[in-house]
Amino acid sequence: MGLVVQKYGGSSVADAEGIKRVAKRIVESKKNGNQVVAVVSAMGDSTDELIDLAEQVSPIPAGRELDMLLTAGERISMALLAMAIKNLGHEAQSFTGSQAGVITDSVHNKARIIDVTPGRIKTSVDEGNIAIVAGFQGVSQDSKDITTLGRGGSDTTAVALAAALEADVCEIYTDVDGVFTADPRVVKKARKIDWISFEDMLELAASGSKVLLHRCVEYARRYNIPIHVRSSFSGLPGTWVSNERPSEGGAEQVEHALISGVAHDVSEAKVTVVGVPDKPGEAAAIFRAIADAEINIDMVVQNVSAASTGLTDISFTLPKTDGKKATSALEKIKGRVGYDSLRYDDQVAKISLVGAGMKTNPGVTAQFFESLSDAGVNIELISTSEIRISVVTRADDVLGAVQAVHTSFGLDSDSDEAVVYGGTGR
Amino acid sequence: MGLVVQKYGGSSVADAEGIKRVAKRIVESKKNGNQVVAVVSAMGDSTDELIDLAEQVSPIPAGRELDMLLTAGERISMALLAMAIKNLGHEAQSFTGSQAGVITDSVHNKARIIDVTPGRIKTSVDEGNIAIVAGFQGVSQDSKDITTLGRGGSDTTAVALAAALEADVCEIYTDVDGVFTADPRVVKKARKIDWISFEDMLELAASGSKVLLHRCVEYARRYNIPIHVRSSFSGLPGTWVSNERPSEGGAEQVEHALISGVAHDVSEAKVTVVGVPDKPGEAAAIFRAIADAEINIDMVVQNVSAASTGLTDISFTLPKTDGKKATSALEKIKGRVGYDSLRYDDQVAKISLVGAGMKTNPGVTAQFFESLSDAGVNIELISTSEIRISVVTRADDVLGAVQAVHTSFGLDSDSDEAVVYGGTGR
Repeated sequence: MGLVVQKYGGSSVADAEGIKRVAKRIVESKKNGNQVVAVVSAMGDSTDELIDLAEQVSPIPAGRELDMLLTAGERISMALLAMAIKNLGHEAQSFTGSQAGVITDSVHNKARIIDVTPGRIKTSVDEGNIAIVAGFQGVSQDSKDITTLGRGGSDTTAVALAAALEADVCEIYTDVDGVFTADPRVVKKARKIDWISFEDMLELAASGSKVLLHRCVEYARRYNIPIHVRSSFSGLPGTWVSNERPSEGGAEQVEHALISGVAHDVSEAKVTVVGVPDKPGEAAAIFRAIADAEINIDMVVQNVSAASTGLTDISFTLPKTDGKKATSALEKIKGRVGYDSLRYDDQVAKISLVGAGMKTNPGVTAQFFESLSDAGVNIELISTSEIRISVVTRADDVLGAVQAVHTSFGLDSDSDEAVVYGGTGR
Repeated sequence: MGLVVQKYGGSSVADAEGIKRVAKRIVESKKNGNQVVAVVSAMGDSTDELIDLAEQVSPIPAGRELDMLLTAGERISMALLAMAIKNLGHEAQSFTGSQAGVITDSVHNKARIIDVTPGRIKTSVDEGNIAIVAGFQGVSQDSKDITTLGRGGSDTTAVALAAALEADVCEIYTDVDGVFTADPRVVKKARKIDWISFEDMLELAASGSKVLLHRCVEYARRYNIPIHVRSSFSGLPGTWVSNERPSEGGAEQVEHALISGVAHDVSEAKVTVVGVPDKPGEAAAIFRAIADAEINIDMVVQNVSAASTGLTDISFTLPKTDGKKATSALEKIKGRVGYDSLRYDDQVAKISLVGAGMKTNPGVTAQFFESLSDAGVNIELISTSEIRISVVTRADDVLGAVQAVHTSFGLDSDSDEAVVYGGTGR
């Protein structure tokens, strides 16, 4: 009874069987009385195969041409999907990003959406068709060249189209049942979250949860598009991400801490700049050097300086892939900053607890640290926000740490303690 | 020293190595001072692989979606080719058929070019870039949907672009050295033709020569675009197809028959309608039935009727693939036409001798039949035009027949007799 934008990832359309299964699901939604726009990624590993081909002809493929190349991937999956739907007796039309009106800037390989003008899509669904749209791609406003949106691009396409079409919901179909209170591969008793706020979802995404990317959630929050993350395999209800918890419950719980889940991330490394003179401008010089090297950092921690020496240590985390770039950038400014030494450590993990109302519930922080301590996990760095506590530990400790925190906060699926800090939407 | 449009087929860009080789050849042409526009087909068998995928999701893939799917093939090859050229230090940009301004009608899978508006290509080459264009594809004038041009589409794209850009030449790169006086796989001593007129080339293409398709030659003749067919592997000069024989020689030969070559075709079958009443309207009824079944016929032969019976036989040839359709169409009108019986024979071959000035050199026809007779080949049908003689023989006889005619007309590469009827442009 409305307009639904659906998104199917590469693993859902990995082969002909997958495409036929997805076609059935789309037709079901149409039969339920919805207008349906389906955004689709490239089949399985096909994008990687194209990148491999590109590297065979050119060690550093040109951005414009790489985008032209990679967009062939969605072209294949979307055309096949439209055929499969027509084979089920329903009308379908496929559209490239350009045809769908996805207008971007000119930054090839990681373009940002500037505008969406979905006139052809609107006409197509109004005429009774199911519209299939290539994810991940657009056309640049200035040069009319084909662009790609970079990582998580198809999710962003779906949310942006949903916003432009004023859709009732954006359904993100994936190979898991939804967003969980922890990674189900790590925590056996992780629970599927029925509802989570945009803010909590943003923190989870920033803390290592891979189900939805930060960028897509941010877009949905800005335009207030409810996201429904669900499995293309099971078809069961998944996780709703939206501003307001739907209907029943919740009101009487707003003063409690509502823990959404535990996230972990082992993709980061920790850099410590040891013996930094504790005077104005030193930290600025360090992070300017990092920024100039185009490295995104995550946590930043500075301890108070030792009174005896007037020196302090500054630590930060960053993607392991940027580790070498960061240390060599810092070594170049060693003389100017006058620090003692650099320590680089890539055997670390970040564990984060995310949930609304933490700040006003001091017990949450204490309980978090106690649960880690009970599990014998040493904390190396701490960083907190309004709705998140993150710690850095040894990489070896990550599984035990996540499990301990998950259990302690009553998130395990058969736990009775979920009343106090829990509340995952049920 | 001009604007060159080049076309590279799928076998020339079958893999990364092929793409790199083609990139080198294009750069060479650019270095020689030319502006270069390169039209490229999909890599090797990739189009067949896509069709196979389509058939896995839908037994009869929808035309619009099949075109969307297949055009991914050239998108991949053209982007890779542009990357490979940039890797050699030259600027290159790839363009889809739509971006290149190839405007077609809306007949999916076999669209016809209506117009070419190559503004972006012109700008790109004027800025010093090598422009790479996807062959085989365009965009429909009415619906703005992606279309494909069907068989030989990439050659047609190249010729159409050359016409619209007023190029000096359209170079068709392929996996053979040019157009030969006979199929080199059949006639060991077949000679490469240095120059051939549009008219002779059209007859050769219609008679079974596969190097250039009829459609592409027709387009080139209409817009008077010289074609140079040559090998992307050897880089040697190939065959020129144009209105006028280039520079030296020729003038004193115009009154001679100038034999271009011998073509053969084993893809056709022969239908004979036996015992047709010899009165007005009978032949019309037969060929109306064939036309209504959308079958293209080739040769048509009717003998004089036997005075005693007033009945005649009508024979025609057609693609073997249409054989069943034709006989069942004819059986339906048997009562109305009142013929005796149908004979269907798919064990036939067509052998054609093509060259200007045949009609005014009666010796050519006689020599053609004598050479077949000397080789013990029986003739079943004869059909002639201004510049072509074709006969139908048993399929088993085809190799011997082609060889005999080739030798008889002095076309063998070490023959001295090429003076009289020869003259293949040297």
